[in-house]
Amino acid sequence: MGEFLKVMSYEEAVLRLRKAIASQQAEECTLGESSGRALSGLLYSPEDVPAFDRSTVDGYALRAMDSFGASEALPAFFQCVGSVLMGAGPDFELGSGECAWIPTGGMLPTGSDAALMVEYTEKLGDDTVLAYRPVSPGENVMLTGEDIRCGQVLFPERHVLRPQDIGLLASLGLKTVSVLKPYQVGIISSGDEVIPIESQPQPGQVRDVNSFSLAAAVARLGHNASNYPLVGDEARQLKAMVAKSLQDNDLTLLSGGSSVGIADFTLDVLLSFPDAELLFHGLAVKPGKPTLAVKINDRLIIGLPGHPVSALMMFHVVVQPLLDNSKPYPLFARLLQNIASQPGRDDFVPVSLQEEAGQWSARPLLGKSGLMGILSRADGYIHIGAVEQGLAGGSICRVALF
Amino acid sequence: MGEFLKVMSYEEAVLRLRKAIASQQAEECTLGESSGRALSGLLYSPEDVPAFDRSTVDGYALRAMDSFGASEALPAFFQCVGSVLMGAGPDFELGSGECAWIPTGGMLPTGSDAALMVEYTEKLGDDTVLAYRPVSPGENVMLTGEDIRCGQVLFPERHVLRPQDIGLLASLGLKTVSVLKPYQVGIISSGDEVIPIESQPQPGQVRDVNSFSLAAAVARLGHNASNYPLVGDEARQLKAMVAKSLQDNDLTLLSGGSSVGIADFTLDVLLSFPDAELLFHGLAVKPGKPTLAVKINDRLIIGLPGHPVSALMMFHVVVQPLLDNSKPYPLFARLLQNIASQPGRDDFVPVSLQEEAGQWSARPLLGKSGLMGILSRADGYIHIGAVEQGLAGGSICRVALF
Repeated sequence: MGEFLKVMSYEEAVLRLRKAIASQQAEECTLGESSGRALSGLLYSPEDVPAFDRSTVDGYALRAMDSFGASEALPAFFQCVGSVLMGAGPDFELGSGECAWIPTGGMLPTGSDAALMVEYTEKLGDDTVLAYRPVSPGENVMLTGEDIRCGQVLFPERHVLRPQDIGLLASLGLKTVSVLKPYQVGIISSGDEVIPIESQPQPGQVRDVNSFSLAAAVARLGHNASNYPLVGDEARQLKAMVAKSLQDNDLTLLSGGSSVGIADFTLDVLLSFPDAELLFHGLAVKPGKPTLAVKINDRLIIGLPGHPVSALMMFHVVVQPLLDNSKPYPLFARLLQNIASQPGRDDFVPVSLQEEAGQWSARPLLGKSGLMGILSRADGYIHIGAVEQGLAGGSICRVALF
Repeated sequence: MGEFLKVMSYEEAVLRLRKAIASQQAEECTLGESSGRALSGLLYSPEDVPAFDRSTVDGYALRAMDSFGASEALPAFFQCVGSVLMGAGPDFELGSGECAWIPTGGMLPTGSDAALMVEYTEKLGDDTVLAYRPVSPGENVMLTGEDIRCGQVLFPERHVLRPQDIGLLASLGLKTVSVLKPYQVGIISSGDEVIPIESQPQPGQVRDVNSFSLAAAVARLGHNASNYPLVGDEARQLKAMVAKSLQDNDLTLLSGGSSVGIADFTLDVLLSFPDAELLFHGLAVKPGKPTLAVKINDRLIIGLPGHPVSALMMFHVVVQPLLDNSKPYPLFARLLQNIASQPGRDDFVPVSLQEEAGQWSARPLLGKSGLMGILSRADGYIHIGAVEQGLAGGSICRVALF
């Protein structure tokens, strides 16, 4: 009872995990299913965008030089020789002094190099157009390839596709795209005190929170979570469940059973698998000291604390970096009070955010360790590095959003 | 050709849309399916959390007063009368001078009011424990209901459930939860120039981007998007497709056909439905002036610009406020250059963000209107209100993330 843990630094632990986890495979998916998926490699444009010179306004296509010097007082005269139809190449060319009606997005007729907005024109009879303003060559026109050139890199590897990115791929005619396959993640809650959520807890019992919160956290990052039945603090039972999850999953998240308690036998069970390699047992991290990780061949098991708040916090700071390819957008916020922190340990402190006068302010949600309600009141968290001795109230801190 | 639009202010348009859209219905879903869903009403806690006084450390449960005065030099002596097991109520009580081993999360035995961490104790023989430090009553203990009280409001109406919220509901034994039903959203792309993405565009033709980008944008907000076949600029065909979508959907997003072009007949088609009510036709907004909205009974149709960049931008600023219940977390960023803007018009300017020294800086992505690549390079956008005449470089601006 009470063997103290040899702890590893947070930074080193994340490095080891990144190295240990198997790479995500690639798979092809249709464009309609690609939202939120990460690209498996660089993506190049197969075409020029736009594919033809097009007007960006409703107005008249013309030769810019014919409009030079035009003004309200002295308009330039053009002969209107036709209309550009949407969706068709014009079947005429423009000569000197000629113009053609063109809608936004219409294809510029050969011979024209600019478009004049309809607001600066007036129609005189059937085929004469007065221009009250000059345009310069290329004005109100998007040239072929001006937006995107054929062969240009569109997105880097692992870029997570957003609606506008999918729109861009659609415009290029890409019906399918090669993306990273989601990880299969097994989730096992353990502990004699843990009961299914539909049961009424007897004295000393708690409901199984981690199966639900961890599965939701995994799914939110676009991976596939599978929940396994609850296991008690019994070695044979735990080993059988872990073996099952190892077979089916790239990553297994095991919660509970990793603290210095009576039932601390999880590590023995994990290390009893052939080829098991201990990555770490114990982290210099608050909350989440009893976190551990074991690699078994190309499969990874991360043991999270049993307490739901610590388990989810450690998911965010230890597991999420392995699973999340999307670009983080931390907020910078003014800290509303001092936070003390022990040097040599990475602290993760939940905060609630408030917006005032063009700035965010962050209130640390302190209080007894493990209040279930804290994370639900939190908008994000602050990371206080191991070299820091806390943060002063009034300073600007970086808040990672939940 | 060229009838100018009577435009409505952005603010007024959003107000009218909010008033016009049907309320979301409520439905029951299981906790495992509730991630990202919005609550249909206030949610109250049915229980106290924790349900029993529990230790927050590994150590010994005892009466705090028996430890008063204990120190390294003069430890207090306790008789250890048992061990608390996880998941079971202790079957003994503690008297004066007695203690019991308790693991983190264990239930405090009757008679004890604090827990002393194992690190400050030493075991002497089988049943004597030395305490090298005093604890005060309640120290290292979480009291019944200290986290959450029975009857307390857990979340407000429309709160979008995150993993930690789902964990909280699991701890309370809530197997199902009442959430808002997603909207059914129909998406119709129109325009003679628009072709399916698998086709090779002929001169003047463009691929159907909006069906893909709008469907992804709707789905990302948790609603159900249905795409309808492309329609050309032909009144009967458009009316038939809109009629179909009206039947199946709460909201129809129609893109294309709403600009002052040759084929501007969309509005006539929409107003030809019985009970059609025009909400607005034309907005004082850039980009997206030709946006329109019509209410037909309890169904809403929003006509977005045909150009993909304007269509998606208007989705974000006009449609998203109707569909998104989640809390926005805008960033505040230093603007890297001036942005000019016309008073009397709301401008939405895409920006790319860069993090430097504890601050975000925002670079406006200007350039010709409608460059497809702009939104893909953008992290978010800035809203310049109708009363502003632009923003000065160096000023702090509010960036809504895409």
